[in-house]
Amino acid sequence: MTEIGAPNRRATTFIGGNGGEWAVVSQRALLGPPIAAVSRVAMIFGSTPGDCRDAAWILRGVATNDRYTTREEKHSLVEKQVPIGRPEATRAALILLRKNADWWAMPQDERRAVLEEQSHHIAIGLRYLPAVARRLLHCRDLESEAPFDFLGFLDFAPADEVAFEDMLGQLRSTKEWSYMEREIDIRLVKPDR
Amino acid sequence: MTEIGAPNRRATTFIGGNGGEWAVVSQRALLGPPIAAVSRVAMIFGSTPGDCRDAAWILRGVATNDRYTTREEKHSLVEKQVPIGRPEATRAALILLRKNADWWAMPQDERRAVLEEQSHHIAIGLRYLPAVARRLLHCRDLESEAPFDFLGFLDFAPADEVAFEDMLGQLRSTKEWSYMEREIDIRLVKPDR
Repeated sequence: MTEIGAPNRRATTFIGGNGGEWAVVSQRALLGPPIAAVSRVAMIFGSTPGDCRDAAWILRGVATNDRYTTREEKHSLVEKQVPIGRPEATRAALILLRKNADWWAMPQDERRAVLEEQSHHIAIGLRYLPAVARRLLHCRDLESEAPFDFLGFLDFAPADEVAFEDMLGQLRSTKEWSYMEREIDIRLVKPDR
Repeated sequence: MTEIGAPNRRATTFIGGNGGEWAVVSQRALLGPPIAAVSRVAMIFGSTPGDCRDAAWILRGVATNDRYTTREEKHSLVEKQVPIGRPEATRAALILLRKNADWWAMPQDERRAVLEEQSHHIAIGLRYLPAVARRLLHCRDLESEAPFDFLGFLDFAPADEVAFEDMLGQLRSTKEWSYMEREIDIRLVKPDR
């Protein structure tokens, strides 16, 4: 039987519990119900982590094709962005988002218009590259029901934390954010070894 | 532990084997490797079917938000389309598709331009509504690796089979189809009870 069960190579799994390289500094539910408070978060590439018996929660997402980005925007992003995991990036945020039914009922052109022409999501993000590195993951179309549509993992050096807050503040004031029905903001620090 | 395991309500599972309401009339690999030949296909709503021990293969996909459709196109589609499962729709096709890396590397605006402005995918499909009913499912972003990006299940009355072939022939001659790297066409009939 060829049941398809191999992990998706574009998947990333976050395990909340007592283990993992990231220590939780704060965990806030800005909109909608919270998830269990944890002291550590492990980030694992792929969708089938091994031992998760002690996990309070497991969240998965998949890095997908560009959903809204145009060629010109992609060119600017690729030119400026850096991958997550730089040694100096000892601060991070894991942002969990879920948009409402109105958002998902909109056709592609209208979602694009809200996201960029009205909210400047891509343009705002671009201004904070390469200080902030991002891994952006989609969860809505997994085969199992997910509590969030989108997981954003962003890491940065301590000196860039103010800039990161500034970026988040701008994004949260946009029209796009008016479609959010759930948002959880988990701040992380990589302890000295 | 809040591992997320409930089936996605937008998922559909196809089980190829010896059971199920659809009898296989033909099964052709048009591009890329075939999958195991089966005599029957079961279609199950949701992603966690029960007993699949006798299945030769299991394919899952999720009905997602509009990826390319504009408001105007969506309006036309919604006005004309009918759901799958009409009593007279005793013929069906299950089309399994995988696009190549070039397709997925394109930004949103370029994929849209190839799909519609250059290939008229939505416009072609629209001409065959409501004779052909469709359930269009995405697989690429499941948490487990999928052999196809897209599953199309289309059902129609026997009298509309010629029209259906005509539609498929038009789509297969488009620029969009030049990005396919795998295509399997399974034809189905619902036997008299």
